[in-house]
Amino acid sequence: MLMSHKYSAYELIDKKKNGGKLSDDEIKWLINSLMNKTLPDYQMAAMLMAMFLKGMTVEETASLTDAMLFSGRTLDLKEKNVIDKHSTGGIGDKTSFILAPIASACGVLVPMMAGRSLGFTGGTIDKVESVKGYRTNLSLDEFQKLLTKNGLVLIGQTDEIAPADKIIYGLRDVTATIDSIPLITASIMSKKLAEGANGIVMDIKCGNGAFMRNISDAKKLGISIMKTAERFKKKATVLITDMNQPLGNMVGNSLEMIESVETLKGKGPKDLTNLSIDLAAHMILQAGKAKNFKDAQNKANAAIESGAALEKFKVMIEAQGGSSKFIYDYESLPKASKITKVTADKKGFIKAFKTDQIGLLLVDLGGGRKVKTDQIDFGVGFEFHKKIGDKVEKGEIILCIHHNEDQQHLVDNIVTRFKKEVITMSTTKTKAPKLVYATMELKKKKAK
Amino acid sequence: MLMSHKYSAYELIDKKKNGGKLSDDEIKWLINSLMNKTLPDYQMAAMLMAMFLKGMTVEETASLTDAMLFSGRTLDLKEKNVIDKHSTGGIGDKTSFILAPIASACGVLVPMMAGRSLGFTGGTIDKVESVKGYRTNLSLDEFQKLLTKNGLVLIGQTDEIAPADKIIYGLRDVTATIDSIPLITASIMSKKLAEGANGIVMDIKCGNGAFMRNISDAKKLGISIMKTAERFKKKATVLITDMNQPLGNMVGNSLEMIESVETLKGKGPKDLTNLSIDLAAHMILQAGKAKNFKDAQNKANAAIESGAALEKFKVMIEAQGGSSKFIYDYESLPKASKITKVTADKKGFIKAFKTDQIGLLLVDLGGGRKVKTDQIDFGVGFEFHKKIGDKVEKGEIILCIHHNEDQQHLVDNIVTRFKKEVITMSTTKTKAPKLVYATMELKKKKAK
Repeated sequence: MLMSHKYSAYELIDKKKNGGKLSDDEIKWLINSLMNKTLPDYQMAAMLMAMFLKGMTVEETASLTDAMLFSGRTLDLKEKNVIDKHSTGGIGDKTSFILAPIASACGVLVPMMAGRSLGFTGGTIDKVESVKGYRTNLSLDEFQKLLTKNGLVLIGQTDEIAPADKIIYGLRDVTATIDSIPLITASIMSKKLAEGANGIVMDIKCGNGAFMRNISDAKKLGISIMKTAERFKKKATVLITDMNQPLGNMVGNSLEMIESVETLKGKGPKDLTNLSIDLAAHMILQAGKAKNFKDAQNKANAAIESGAALEKFKVMIEAQGGSSKFIYDYESLPKASKITKVTADKKGFIKAFKTDQIGLLLVDLGGGRKVKTDQIDFGVGFEFHKKIGDKVEKGEIILCIHHNEDQQHLVDNIVTRFKKEVITMSTTKTKAPKLVYATMELKKKKAK
Repeated sequence: MLMSHKYSAYELIDKKKNGGKLSDDEIKWLINSLMNKTLPDYQMAAMLMAMFLKGMTVEETASLTDAMLFSGRTLDLKEKNVIDKHSTGGIGDKTSFILAPIASACGVLVPMMAGRSLGFTGGTIDKVESVKGYRTNLSLDEFQKLLTKNGLVLIGQTDEIAPADKIIYGLRDVTATIDSIPLITASIMSKKLAEGANGIVMDIKCGNGAFMRNISDAKKLGISIMKTAERFKKKATVLITDMNQPLGNMVGNSLEMIESVETLKGKGPKDLTNLSIDLAAHMILQAGKAKNFKDAQNKANAAIESGAALEKFKVMIEAQGGSSKFIYDYESLPKASKITKVTADKKGFIKAFKTDQIGLLLVDLGGGRKVKTDQIDFGVGFEFHKKIGDKVEKGEIILCIHHNEDQQHLVDNIVTRFKKEVITMSTTKTKAPKLVYATMELKKKKAK
């Protein structure tokens, strides 16, 4: 009672609404009050909107991260080579399945807690649940045991880690306060710090299939993440990468597992392979397992060529109860019964995709969620044969739609939308977008 | 169900958050959803903060007013001479008790629904409840009957009128979104329009004892009120009046009733008398009961001089069950047992008051509310002998504190606070503030 009356929610909302800066103590009181249910949802909702519209300083963001981090259990893993990766989400983004085994094969401990699909972006946890038997809901103790034993582990969000984030995210999700740089920063960093990571490689997706539509916003988020990491004395590397077309060729849960395995076998598409290698290399470098970035890239490539990364992937799948049969027999994964081709009406070049629309069309097919309670159809998805800058002959296949027998009417509509809205063609060749727009790291401070 | 899914609250919050303009239909949907409880508090709270920080256009304010107005019952009084007054609240503001009988005596129908004290401002309903037996909670049917019969009626807020305002005000009160011009406008206008007023005289208090601290903000609210009134084809006159010192000399519930009666008897302080006359004159003019403002002022003065206004006041008190004995015997009102004088430590002139602090000191004495459930002590209060610009000799009384026997320790503290914080003295004479800073009316549009 005394604690919760130290401040008043009204005064703190009023302060933030007027553009004031909340102290560390005030933010801690706020999160404590939220957790012990003395702060009603409606006051937190008003505060989140005020934070969204008035912004937060680096200090406030660090305080919020800290308060959310300590709202639940924290792992202290002792080892210094615990490095995690986080992506802000996009279409066909399956790098986690590739880079985690690579980094692990190179001596990095990789503790991954991933999310589910919602809206236009897919979810790593939904994708891996295409694999029969794979358990994504391990306890934190099992999580830590497997990380130490195998060097990598991949589970879903657990209530034990940063429960304040779950409450706040739930409110942001219904009050249109998701796309706030300080709130995104605190949400990501509180979880990563709680799971014991000593470094984080951040993949900020940028483009029409990502939350960040332009490089300027992406850089702001990158700086916010790095500055917050610095305050907690953790390493952070930020890559701003393209999301103006799907990453790789496959979009859909089973399909993305297949493409991940193909990439681990050295047969993946170039963009997906290169980005996974680069992200893994930054993790290897952060963990001190390479002399420089080039050396780290070489080590990452070697882990694919030697089969060590694929072996790590198999170990992870089996350790969490999954059947690894699919690694050599893709037919054992959930599969759609029918394939419909989308072909070019005239010759030309692929100029652009409305990438977020591809994600929404996958949701229409059943491969994603409109609301949290929706069931996922793992088999459905899209297989792109062409990407931006590719030449296309009249009648040539641009993509294949994997769907179920009873979806033909829906699929006809999807084919039309691909041709009329989602894909833009041109008569002259468009340059393919850069894969990595920027790599950001905080400069090391000189010793005083 | 279908109705409530016409829009999504998320989309509307997102739109407003990004500075977009909500349509009439969207605002109606929002208020309907709030009333039928399909819109949760936390979404409305986020919306209110977005409205607060991003503002609302005249059209949006009118739509919100309209939606709130029709959330409950509306009175259609047929008569064209129904004119109400509204004050944004201040210290010692008791004009309602004076101008309503004056205007009524001059042929205006005056339907008053007033509020209670909260925070530093007093409440008209609390003041009139000093009168034994007076009923402030009439039904809307009784309200209408008495208005038609007597020409004036004064009750508290009823749940029948604009219930959406009550819900929204409750949320604004705890989410620091009170001081928003469009939200204040919609709150006032929805109630005034629902009670059947054809015109409104708005007294916007301005100064350190009011919500509006500067004339610029007060004018913005004035314009917003007038433009909203215009959209509903109602008359509106806005006065921006001084609140840098208490209005009149008395502050406290019983004390203010006494001063009101004194003013109706023609023996009131000059500032209170003049402002009441002016506000009443604007009402008389709006109701078409005078040729011009000067004529209306003369009629208002005559209503005092003839005793007609005092008679109207007596009729109102008795019609609502109150004992009118106090009109000729002030001792019959609740009364504090002790008076403590605050005297000048040195000679000089009164330079300024921290007027809001006077309101808060009254709350400390028990004459106002810290929280809604607090009981009011009607007898306590302050009686000012000096106002800004007045000369004061050493040892002369500046004010008297009316309090109870057992409050001496508290009163000693209040005396100190008056001397050290609330009252500023100077060695040279300060000009008394103007009573009316501005009078605003929409220009009549020329016929097309």
